[in-house]
Amino acid sequence: MSLFHIIPDRHDVVQDHNAPKDKNSFRHKLYVVIFQNNTRAGRLFNVGLFLFIFASIILLILESVESISIAYDKVFDIIDYVFLIVFSIEYLLRLYCVRDAKKYALSFYGIIDFLAIVPSYMEFFLPNWHMLMAFRCFRLLRIFRIFRMVRLLDESRYMMLALLRNFNKILVFLFFIVLLTLFLGVLLYVIESPYNPGFSSIPQSVYWAIVTITTVGYGDVAPMTIGGKMIASFIMILGYAIIAVPTGMLSAAVVTKYRDMDNASRTCPHCHNKNNASDALYCKICGTPLSDNMKQK
Amino acid sequence: MSLFHIIPDRHDVVQDHNAPKDKNSFRHKLYVVIFQNNTRAGRLFNVGLFLFIFASIILLILESVESISIAYDKVFDIIDYVFLIVFSIEYLLRLYCVRDAKKYALSFYGIIDFLAIVPSYMEFFLPNWHMLMAFRCFRLLRIFRIFRMVRLLDESRYMMLALLRNFNKILVFLFFIVLLTLFLGVLLYVIESPYNPGFSSIPQSVYWAIVTITTVGYGDVAPMTIGGKMIASFIMILGYAIIAVPTGMLSAAVVTKYRDMDNASRTCPHCHNKNNASDALYCKICGTPLSDNMKQK
Amino acid sequence: MSLFHIIPDRHDVVQDHNAPKDKNSFRHKLYVVIFQNNTRAGRLFNVGLFLFIFASIILLILESVESISIAYDKVFDIIDYVFLIVFSIEYLLRLYCVRDAKKYALSFYGIIDFLAIVPSYMEFFLPNWHMLMAFRCFRLLRIFRIFRMVRLLDESRYMMLALLRNFNKILVFLFFIVLLTLFLGVLLYVIESPYNPGFSSIPQSVYWAIVTITTVGYGDVAPMTIGGKMIASFIMILGYAIIAVPTGMLSAAVVTKYRDMDNASRTCPHCHNKNNASDALYCKICGTPLSDNMKQK
Amino acid sequence: MSLFHIIPDRHDVVQDHNAPKDKNSFRHKLYVVIFQNNTRAGRLFNVGLFLFIFASIILLILESVESISIAYDKVFDIIDYVFLIVFSIEYLLRLYCVRDAKKYALSFYGIIDFLAIVPSYMEFFLPNWHMLMAFRCFRLLRIFRIFRMVRLLDESRYMMLALLRNFNKILVFLFFIVLLTLFLGVLLYVIESPYNPGFSSIPQSVYWAIVTITTVGYGDVAPMTIGGKMIASFIMILGYAIIAVPTGMLSAAVVTKYRDMDNASRTCPHCHNKNNASDALYCKICGTPLSDNMKQK
Repeated sequence: MSLFHIIPDRHDVVQDHNAPKDKNSFRHKLYVVIFQNNTRAGRLFNVGLFLFIFASIILLILESVESISIAYDKVFDIIDYVFLIVFSIEYLLRLYCVRDAKKYALSFYGIIDFLAIVPSYMEFFLPNWHMLMAFRCFRLLRIFRIFRMVRLLDESRYMMLALLRNFNKILVFLFFIVLLTLFLGVLLYVIESPYNPGFSSIPQSVYWAIVTITTVGYGDVAPMTIGGKMIASFIMILGYAIIAVPTGMLSAAVVTKYRDMDNASRTCPHCHNKNNASDALYCKICGTPLSDNMKQK
Repeated sequence: MSLFHIIPDRHDVVQDHNAPKDKNSFRHKLYVVIFQNNTRAGRLFNVGLFLFIFASIILLILESVESISIAYDKVFDIIDYVFLIVFSIEYLLRLYCVRDAKKYALSFYGIIDFLAIVPSYMEFFLPNWHMLMAFRCFRLLRIFRIFRMVRLLDESRYMMLALLRNFNKILVFLFFIVLLTLFLGVLLYVIESPYNPGFSSIPQSVYWAIVTITTVGYGDVAPMTIGGKMIASFIMILGYAIIAVPTGMLSAAVVTKYRDMDNASRTCPHCHNKNNASDALYCKICGTPLSDNMKQK
Repeated sequence: MSLFHIIPDRHDVVQDHNAPKDKNSFRHKLYVVIFQNNTRAGRLFNVGLFLFIFASIILLILESVESISIAYDKVFDIIDYVFLIVFSIEYLLRLYCVRDAKKYALSFYGIIDFLAIVPSYMEFFLPNWHMLMAFRCFRLLRIFRIFRMVRLLDESRYMMLALLRNFNKILVFLFFIVLLTLFLGVLLYVIESPYNPGFSSIPQSVYWAIVTITTVGYGDVAPMTIGGKMIASFIMILGYAIIAVPTGMLSAAVVTKYRDMDNASRTCPHCHNKNNASDALYCKICGTPLSDNMKQK
Repeated sequence: MSLFHIIPDRHDVVQDHNAPKDKNSFRHKLYVVIFQNNTRAGRLFNVGLFLFIFASIILLILESVESISIAYDKVFDIIDYVFLIVFSIEYLLRLYCVRDAKKYALSFYGIIDFLAIVPSYMEFFLPNWHMLMAFRCFRLLRIFRIFRMVRLLDESRYMMLALLRNFNKILVFLFFIVLLTLFLGVLLYVIESPYNPGFSSIPQSVYWAIVTITTVGYGDVAPMTIGGKMIASFIMILGYAIIAVPTGMLSAAVVTKYRDMDNASRTCPHCHNKNNASDALYCKICGTPLSDNMKQK
């Protein structure tokens, strides 16, 4: 359920821990097709499923556009039923073919699969409750299944790991930004609030400070007094300068990581040269053969 | 036709693979002037051609400004004819002087050269079809010819290569951004749509999310509810923080590349391993002594 | 009182230099609880105090929202009194338990603690002076106490040090930005002021230049003449390019610092040179052999 | 007159090449005070001059604010006369005390000093010519004199050199941005111009593309059609991604420069270890003494 579950372990793709015991049963064959990716049938099923998920998200987006939604009302209703039936059958098959149905139902993907279909069913019973429309968006979460399939996984996990390794620093940085915008928001509230309706409260001012320091700058709220403009200028230059902080940290982290990967060095037993590359078989200074167990961590 | 064709190989500048066979014919001499850059006449032709292309683009820009376009209507028409005649002659000469006219016509630059003149001709036959005016913009594509001439080529190819080497990472990053803006757009659609006409559909909300996360912040659409503003603040700080990701990756890539270039490696005369460090005295794979004059540039 | 006081020294957390002399007195016990963080009671007191400070800031924010402020006027008044009494008692206890009350009162945190309560008292005597409301915001400064408690301290000090080490460069950069915006502001004032009310004075134009070069871009002021738009375009691309300067500097600084930390050096037992590389076998200054157990952390 | 003159050589500060020949004359003593910075009188003169320049710029800024300008009209006129007299005397003294008056008058600073006073004189003869007011801004250029005085010089020159070393890359980058915005501007002109007055001409569209790709985003012009919004989204994400290019290049340049400074390494004549630090006297691998002439470039 944690953040780590979003980026599933690679071995997870060929997981077996919830497969039915009898390897020759129909349930086990179904399990291999639905949950695994290392057979031809499994890959076909997963690609097909992803196309269905993708189509259902496109449908969701189109339905939200009023002009399209009114024109093709009936068509959308029918396609919606089709998707509902397909995803329901898929969910039931998943429940059926795993060894422990409860374990799947309470897993990260199990909950997403459930959330993706249940709001559509509730619309039958509570057709007028507008908010239910919103819950259809849970369908969007199924896009995470893509992480199970694509080769991009390795790259994205690499990046996610780099971010997690520097999580402390990012947290301090965000905490610092929040504190700073709080101070600056209060400051501009004190200066601008008597003259400018856009700074009528501290939350409003803090919102403005965030919009400004991140250089988004909508312009719906802008300082109008001279003092406010001076402090706003200071905030902008500050925001412009401190964007260097996370960038610098990440650059350094990635550079350092690359170097560490290069520098898995090995010490020569004869001349004690420690700068042999990790794949060296002979010392580059004296030519002494290097044994395998010399590798340093 | 691929992206690699946009950045032509440097040897391409003095290419000969489509030159006429008879080296003393007028066609071959014309080929050298028009297609090659290593003679005085060739350079003159190319610089002159580029000035014409540049002037035709300036004309295109000026014609689009209504006040100028009305005042100098007749002048522009005449200059347009002149450009059309010049570029038509140039295109015909190119077709004439190459060994295989079809090969040139279907090459990257051949298609661009054709697209740059054909819309102007079609205006004679379909004078009222407004969209044709738009196709004049194909003329802009001819600016790519500049890549054939300038010394900047090396720098730009270097950068293009660095980007291509990190293409996977950039793709993952863009995919991640698109997914993120999709989620955030849907989230704000759910929160804001009942109160704010700017979030009337999911595409509209996703557009807003992209405008916000990239810190562009037009301000034509901005959240108005408290919940929307809180999530918007989160998006902004997120966008501010994740800009570090591509920057960090590219910095690391460039630093690493520079270091690799420094570590001008030495090839082992025995096992032909090319990855020996610049200060290695013995091959790290087979232990053969390396002499000093083996260093590669 | 300087910037360095904001990030107190870690040893400061268990400081003793203002503790009462008699270690068994009630005053000393109180001092340990209030000022120190290394006992269970001390940690409890500090966490409790921080929750109070946090609540008082939430109160401040809520009071600034007019709709909430009017609805819960009486409730806020009562909670305000409670906070005033709690913080007053805390301040008096701090004054009582330190050895030198004046020294504490004039210290960084002493002044903040005083400023956080005195405006509320002045409201009794000058109830109509609106500006006093603004001074309540001094309460916000107490959030700095968090730096005394949290483990985040190390990370934030590390970043602060990195920034201070590069203070000169950042100063030059900011000075350069200010000078640049001054020039560009004057330039656009000359071009735009006759046609555009948004550039009616130089300060106004400089404000616009800052808004533009930092890529904030509110849009409340924008160039309207062709000349103005051309220079504005130049400014934007410039701002887009020079953001690389602080980022590049900081990246380099952090990378360099990491490398320095990696090059954990070894001290020579003979000449006490501390700058030997981690893989050195002989001191680079005097040639004395270095044994393995000399490596510094 | 080139860019290099803006950042004068440090030795320039104590330059003597335009000093009067007779070292004991009054002219030479005046030259030392006015042009040089290494005597107490020289420093005093320069600091005083800078204060005057700074005050004249403040005056210029204040005069541009209409409300202040009207209220203190007479006062400003008088102060203006005072500055004019002071700067005129200073200019005449400079002309008097140098060996070659013409050489100074045509030098970078000589022209600036002249431009700073001449518009004020012309206002006497052409009091109604409004544009002359604008030329007063030349006074701003005198701020460059600060580069002659402050220690910041070293830092700013260091940065300027780093930028100049990467000038080619920056030029390619800017050229690429300009080309890209031209293409994208034309593309949106074709799509948006029939529906959106903000894209009425190609220059207008290119301006919008620059505002968008640099993430400034004023919002005075924004796409309104679906196609336009889709391409705009693409532009924004592109701009967000390519900001990494100059940052990455500069980071790499600075890191590489730092490393080069560290790595002025020396080769051991005995064990041929090339990794000895630049200040090493003995090889760190075998302890052999290193002679001074072994240092590699």
